Amino acid sequence: MQSGLSFFDSDVSFTPLVVLELAADTKTEATAWLLNRIRGKQQNGGAELLMEQVLFPAQDGQKPNPNILVVGSTLQRLLNGAEDVGLFKEFQDGTMRGFTYANRESFKDFEGDGEGFLSVAECQYIVKHELDTLRAKNEDHVPGYPKLKLYPGKSVMRRLQSKGVLIQYFPLHEKEDLKRLSFSWYKQIKLSFQPLDDIRRYFGEGLALYFGFLEYFTFALVPMAVIGIPYYLFDWEDYDKYVLFAVFNLVWSTVFLEVWKRCSATLAYRWGTLCRKKAFEEPRPGFHGELGFNPVTGREEPVYPSSKRQLRIYLVSVPFVLLCLYLSFYVMMIYFDMETWAISIYNDSPNILTGILLFVPSIIYAVVIEIMNLLYRHAAEFLTHWENHRLESSFQNHLVLKVLVFNFVNCFASLFYIAFVMQDMVLLRQSLATLLITSQILNQVMEAFLPYWLQKRRNKKVNKRMRKLMGDKELPLLEQVQLETDMNTYLGTFDDYLEQFLLFGYVSLFSCVYPLAAVLVVLNNVTEVYSDAFKMCHVFKRPFSEPAANIGVWQLAFETMSIIAVVTNCALIGLSPQVQAYFPESETQLIFTIVAIEHVLLAFKFILAFVIPDVPKHIQIQLAKLDFESLEALKKRKILEAAET
Amino acid sequence: MQSGLSFFDSDVSFTPLVVLELAADTKTEATAWLLNRIRGKQQNGGAELLMEQVLFPAQDGQKPNPNILVVGSTLQRLLNGAEDVGLFKEFQDGTMRGFTYANRESFKDFEGDGEGFLSVAECQYIVKHELDTLRAKNEDHVPGYPKLKLYPGKSVMRRLQSKGVLIQYFPLHEKEDLKRLSFSWYKQIKLSFQPLDDIRRYFGEGLALYFGFLEYFTFALVPMAVIGIPYYLFDWEDYDKYVLFAVFNLVWSTVFLEVWKRCSATLAYRWGTLCRKKAFEEPRPGFHGELGFNPVTGREEPVYPSSKRQLRIYLVSVPFVLLCLYLSFYVMMIYFDMETWAISIYNDSPNILTGILLFVPSIIYAVVIEIMNLLYRHAAEFLTHWENHRLESSFQNHLVLKVLVFNFVNCFASLFYIAFVMQDMVLLRQSLATLLITSQILNQVMEAFLPYWLQKRRNKKVNKRMRKLMGDKELPLLEQVQLETDMNTYLGTFDDYLEQFLLFGYVSLFSCVYPLAAVLVVLNNVTEVYSDAFKMCHVFKRPFSEPAANIGVWQLAFETMSIIAVVTNCALIGLSPQVQAYFPESETQLIFTIVAIEHVLLAFKFILAFVIPDVPKHIQIQLAKLDFESLEALKKRKILEAAET
Repeated sequence: MQSGLSFFDSDVSFTPLVVLELAADTKTEATAWLLNRIRGKQQNGGAELLMEQVLFPAQDGQKPNPNILVVGSTLQRLLNGAEDVGLFKEFQDGTMRGFTYANRESFKDFEGDGEGFLSVAECQYIVKHELDTLRAKNEDHVPGYPKLKLYPGKSVMRRLQSKGVLIQYFPLHEKEDLKRLSFSWYKQIKLSFQPLDDIRRYFGEGLALYFGFLEYFTFALVPMAVIGIPYYLFDWEDYDKYVLFAVFNLVWSTVFLEVWKRCSATLAYRWGTLCRKKAFEEPRPGFHGELGFNPVTGREEPVYPSSKRQLRIYLVSVPFVLLCLYLSFYVMMIYFDMETWAISIYNDSPNILTGILLFVPSIIYAVVIEIMNLLYRHAAEFLTHWENHRLESSFQNHLVLKVLVFNFVNCFASLFYIAFVMQDMVLLRQSLATLLITSQILNQVMEAFLPYWLQKRRNKKVNKRMRKLMGDKELPLLEQVQLETDMNTYLGTFDDYLEQFLLFGYVSLFSCVYPLAAVLVVLNNVTEVYSDAFKMCHVFKRPFSEPAANIGVWQLAFETMSIIAVVTNCALIGLSPQVQAYFPESETQLIFTIVAIEHVLLAFKFILAFVIPDVPKHIQIQLAKLDFESLEALKKRKILEAAET
Repeated sequence: MQSGLSFFDSDVSFTPLVVLELAADTKTEATAWLLNRIRGKQQNGGAELLMEQVLFPAQDGQKPNPNILVVGSTLQRLLNGAEDVGLFKEFQDGTMRGFTYANRESFKDFEGDGEGFLSVAECQYIVKHELDTLRAKNEDHVPGYPKLKLYPGKSVMRRLQSKGVLIQYFPLHEKEDLKRLSFSWYKQIKLSFQPLDDIRRYFGEGLALYFGFLEYFTFALVPMAVIGIPYYLFDWEDYDKYVLFAVFNLVWSTVFLEVWKRCSATLAYRWGTLCRKKAFEEPRPGFHGELGFNPVTGREEPVYPSSKRQLRIYLVSVPFVLLCLYLSFYVMMIYFDMETWAISIYNDSPNILTGILLFVPSIIYAVVIEIMNLLYRHAAEFLTHWENHRLESSFQNHLVLKVLVFNFVNCFASLFYIAFVMQDMVLLRQSLATLLITSQILNQVMEAFLPYWLQKRRNKKVNKRMRKLMGDKELPLLEQVQLETDMNTYLGTFDDYLEQFLLFGYVSLFSCVYPLAAVLVVLNNVTEVYSDAFKMCHVFKRPFSEPAANIGVWQLAFETMSIIAVVTNCALIGLSPQVQAYFPESETQLIFTIVAIEHVLLAFKFILAFVIPDVPKHIQIQLAKLDFESLEALKKRKILEAAET
């Protein structure tokens, strides 16, 4: 095990890209075997990457983990890897094309040997891909661990990770780039767009799309906020005017999502992820099962019968979700009791103190909702793990579905109840305002300040280094590695999107009753950009970039919400005294009219979604061009081949 | 021009597959040039096909068209062509794979030099593809026609066809196969499935999918018909029971379409069209425009600004459609006047004669509807031609949309009016029955018997030959060519699907009121199978096979209808006296309940459509397997290449 080169002895012989942390008690033969496999030639089934073991000195009597490895790669290997992962880069003629090593000279920005052609995030993504696709050969088990079976052709890293030998692997920050990015992103207080291309270059497409969506959503809310302010200021007690606002809401929420699809396609095209093919999906690290044959690859590997999974879903998960929903309703009823009690006290002796008391039930309920969401979030994650999904995508879909259904009911049930059962618009307005403001404050605290504070507290040493990292002083690589190993891991954009989803719900469902909602959400999102940016740059480990072509399942979630918004807004219009005045004799006539309008709007929405192309025309032409060219090239080659034979 | 080999002088030197008919007055140099291009080597831009000119003797003083050419091909050329068109064939291991000439030995049924590996329909399709993709080189215009400009890289045949030089080209029937097919298909009266695989082998996937859908639809209707008969027999005057039937309708129409998607995927996989990539679409023959640059190919070709097309659509087509709809409503109102008049006469003196008179207005209206549909169909086709769409697919979409909207309104407006405005269930039942029966009878006559009769009448000579073709005697090739040249051209499945669409509408929208509708549709479809089969085999020219993976835009049309069916059935349930009896006090309560149920059903429908996978599991696995294997093969090749360098 003396092959590892300590950073104390000499400078590192390569630019370190990714850090691998193995368990401190990993057997030496296992580490040696892994080093060997990662460094091995490709034709022998290796990853052909560069790798060094980092040896930390003991500090404060604590023995540091001796099994921290840094991985790098030669430029040649990275360029070949770029082809493996199907990276799209800009071609000479400005189109985005799949990179191939043979045509490397024809790509824009490829100069000399290709130094600087790939961004560091891309290099790290390539290294991750090569590590992930390092497959077991004919080894039966990991050396030193007779029980840690290996299956030929399956990913070694996934196996090690699911068995706890590999604790984590993550890409390293680049201090210079990070400083530049954070300066242009959030350190200047100025009115400008976010540097999305730089964010994408540093953090990858998935995260950049999230920030793009956040920005787009915020800008889209501005007109609504602008209309909302005079509504709020001048018609405080005139609930009738909200019909116009509801109609505006209806149109807005439909157009908003359709236009976003086009924006997202434009961004994805520019970033080369629009046409990129999905890689073959490996089983997720936590997946386990009995030995069987994969029907697709024909290889021997753990297999879990889907009937068992269905049983777990329908006999445990579904009842659990229903139970949680029941609980949520129960809490809602307690809230209404509290509300009645507060109002009765206020009516007995109306003064400032009891006036404030009126808001207390809503605030308590808002806090309880947040706590329930948080608890449920963990339970849902646990349950979905236990359902033992084979693929990450299937795991994500089940988790998102579980969380969305509960969060939707938990957050909005009371509002629906107030609006349509109690039909009390004053209470609806008050309840909405309290829920929205409380949840925003809680979220900002939970999301950015709390992790930052925890991070700061964790230990003073890290704190000291942290300041160094954020300061100008160069940190030795060794310390950077140690520091980042201890940082929190960013768990993906799930919670960020979820928050935006709920905010979208508040605005699109009920903002006609409380026009200030849009203003509050805009304010929240402006600070959200800063706090999210800060947390990405300084609170969390750098995440691996994730090539995303769209916001995935969230597009569907937002669209579902906008359909519910159409129904809700139509119902609210029907409840308005102004509209009811038009049908003084017949309530039936009113309901028929509202239902008819609702059906027309829904039909119109579907037609609109169908008619507006998801990809803008100029990008469609670019894509057709590429198709056409590859077809022509193929044809030419075939004719040449035919002529030769 | 003596290169053409007359069939009188010798036997044909190859199996003729496709017949080309040029205008009788085509200039000799143009024919010679075309012959030359079609026979030319591929590397010189030719199609490398075999071709002979057919010289008919003068008959009955009529000078026959001297410009009839038959096209054939060498086996080698066909196998290369199969790769060009991306044909999928069954591999040794039972999966469907894209055929490549290099791997030809690994495909099932490939024996020796590959004789018999491709079906004749496939060969004809390949020949058509090669003819269609025969492109102009540097010729400025067609020899002999200085005004008939050619654009380098554009299809020669399309150009000749749009300028009227090429009248038609069509594949030849194979008498033996046709006899065998028609025997197993419709000549035996027996209860069995249609020989879909044979139909596909002879007519191609597009038509086979139509017959598959027809069969599936008919079988799916059987349970409804079985339930419908006792309803009809025992509850003749009890309209209340239709609630149960409406609920059944709701579920049926949703499940029906979801299951069909899976059936269609199964068929398409078996026939190798499921994964087949769409070919690059050429402009349709009728398209014209000013010279410009194609943004995709960068080549000079006629271009028509889409703003002009939009103007034509919105300023002419849309107003025209609206006018037709208005006309249709006007006719409907006349029908109601006639109806009132007939009822008043019956009430004055109720006897058998006036009893029959009651049905007369409906019958007249049904005939008028059919005539209006027919006239509108031609007008819509003319208008869509005039809109000058560049691609066939866009043309088809606009045509289908125009025709569907009008036909839907024209056929169902009166029924909706009777059901929801007049709320007269007796009249609805009577009107539905008359419309359905009359339109079925008319359709059968128009579709099969009329063309057959016209064909028979056209001239006695053809008639005589026709009988020969249908008889056992072998016809000389020359006569077969001449006979088939004069046969009607099958214009595609459009009208057949349209008829099924309207029948589906009658059943899914209103059959709860008239449960016998399903029985009538089943009876109609059973005869439809026979008459359609007969017309395909003996009335029309053989159509080119059309590789289809699904029923295309019709799936969407049927789904839209099934959504309308949910709304309609819910409304019918709400109108039922039985249901109204549950809410004796409050009409509002009833409407709320119905609307709520409708929303839940629609939501359920969307969730169902989302949850049921469109492709059955075992086919998904097959597809994933192919993906995986090609990925593995690519990886292996790359590693080998990297090792070599």
